[in-house]
Amino acid sequence: MSGRHETSVELRVRYGETDQMGVAYHAHYLVWCEMARTEHMRRLGVRYRDLEEGGIKLAVAEASLRYARSARYDDLVRVTAWIADVGSRRVTFRYRVERPEDNALLCTAETALVSLDHANRPTRLPDAALAIMESVVGDA
Amino acid sequence: MSGRHETSVELRVRYGETDQMGVAYHAHYLVWCEMARTEHMRRLGVRYRDLEEGGIKLAVAEASLRYARSARYDDLVRVTAWIADVGSRRVTFRYRVERPEDNALLCTAETALVSLDHANRPTRLPDAALAIMESVVGDA
Amino acid sequence: MSGRHETSVELRVRYGETDQMGVAYHAHYLVWCEMARTEHMRRLGVRYRDLEEGGIKLAVAEASLRYARSARYDDLVRVTAWIADVGSRRVTFRYRVERPEDNALLCTAETALVSLDHANRPTRLPDAALAIMESVVGDA
Amino acid sequence: MSGRHETSVELRVRYGETDQMGVAYHAHYLVWCEMARTEHMRRLGVRYRDLEEGGIKLAVAEASLRYARSARYDDLVRVTAWIADVGSRRVTFRYRVERPEDNALLCTAETALVSLDHANRPTRLPDAALAIMESVVGDA
Repeated sequence: MSGRHETSVELRVRYGETDQMGVAYHAHYLVWCEMARTEHMRRLGVRYRDLEEGGIKLAVAEASLRYARSARYDDLVRVTAWIADVGSRRVTFRYRVERPEDNALLCTAETALVSLDHANRPTRLPDAALAIMESVVGDA
Repeated sequence: MSGRHETSVELRVRYGETDQMGVAYHAHYLVWCEMARTEHMRRLGVRYRDLEEGGIKLAVAEASLRYARSARYDDLVRVTAWIADVGSRRVTFRYRVERPEDNALLCTAETALVSLDHANRPTRLPDAALAIMESVVGDA
Repeated sequence: MSGRHETSVELRVRYGETDQMGVAYHAHYLVWCEMARTEHMRRLGVRYRDLEEGGIKLAVAEASLRYARSARYDDLVRVTAWIADVGSRRVTFRYRVERPEDNALLCTAETALVSLDHANRPTRLPDAALAIMESVVGDA
Repeated sequence: MSGRHETSVELRVRYGETDQMGVAYHAHYLVWCEMARTEHMRRLGVRYRDLEEGGIKLAVAEASLRYARSARYDDLVRVTAWIADVGSRRVTFRYRVERPEDNALLCTAETALVSLDHANRPTRLPDAALAIMESVVGDA
């Protein structure tokens, strides 16, 4: 982990997340990444639910995923999130999706989020949240 | 159709809606029923989007589904909705899900919705909406 | 728990599971029920993944849900599953969905599953699985 | 359209596709892109269902999305797909997601798919499919 600030969540692939290829459908990886992102923010003390209740939304502006191997139904999957970059109105998270059972790398991903106010205009992140996120910016 | 007021929508089963059994995952039928319900209300002149913008939400209180045959990826599916019962705070829809290609019945379903205000308290449906829905109550 | 054989799983409501009403979308409860059902079977020693690899599928034939209260984003939710009835080709599960934080009951549900062979014909459950499930039939 | 070979599909944003931000959840755009991709292939005469029944799967290897504006519940959305690049084992699609009502661009996306055999090994696309796809490669 070499000093990187990151958070992992584990989940089991749900039956409804498989497709007829017998593997987890590719769009669900974005949902899993969000789960790890939410937990990472919670652990840092920037609970997304609180941000939103305070009038700030983080909307996904860009997403990219590179799929390496498939996940199957009932597989245990580990998703790790960390902050790769942060600015006053934008924060970029990176992700690794792995299968702990055989340490296989399933997917890497990145999402950039922009901070929006209640009228959906770009706005500064709250100072406290920004300071925390700046303090843990890392890279793979 | 024997005088029944009902509305049908057609959709193709999406790849992401299949599961590894090779058929449409059972939870998606609730989504399809909602599509037909939305269209039925739109056609009756009770646009759900307008209701919600007017402060009224219709929340699903009960749902039941009886699955008869499976739908496969890329199958064309027809979902028909009609109002089976309506009261001042509650409306019950019924549904038939069919495959037009061979006229197979895939599923029948029923959902009861309750009318909620902005604080999520049960509330009367708007008079105009109620009058329209009462005028088309039918049964299978 | 009064001697009842049941299994609970806990999950957090994902952002992607909310809808614009600000609550968990009703169709996802079927997915959550399946998670508890899968874990219950795993704990009983009837792993669904093994059943399917052995050529037996359990297809949902009927589902019914009664929604009592809403779950919100990031809420912790507990889903408990038990077997209410079992026959040679059919098993019925019941579910309670609760919010541990305030012990609120969110939903009760029931699904009936039928045992299908590789050609999707109804078939007997494997004897071992049947015996296990019969030994734990309980009711709420 | 300027001679470009492309196919558009239209869909309405489903209630279950919204999230509590009141807009279509970002992961669903991948599902919508797949709908347009499927229709584009069907129109070209390379029906994905037939490919798969012939033992060839197209698995998503990379995806990237750039979100410009949000789609709301009940919005009509148009998704256009075209082939940006094709090789013997890999085909890249690009997408535009637009709202016809005001001609707003909602999202642009790209997915690269690899051709896999029944054992999930990379394999050549069938000659006929490859020839067709090569003949319509275009770019935005």
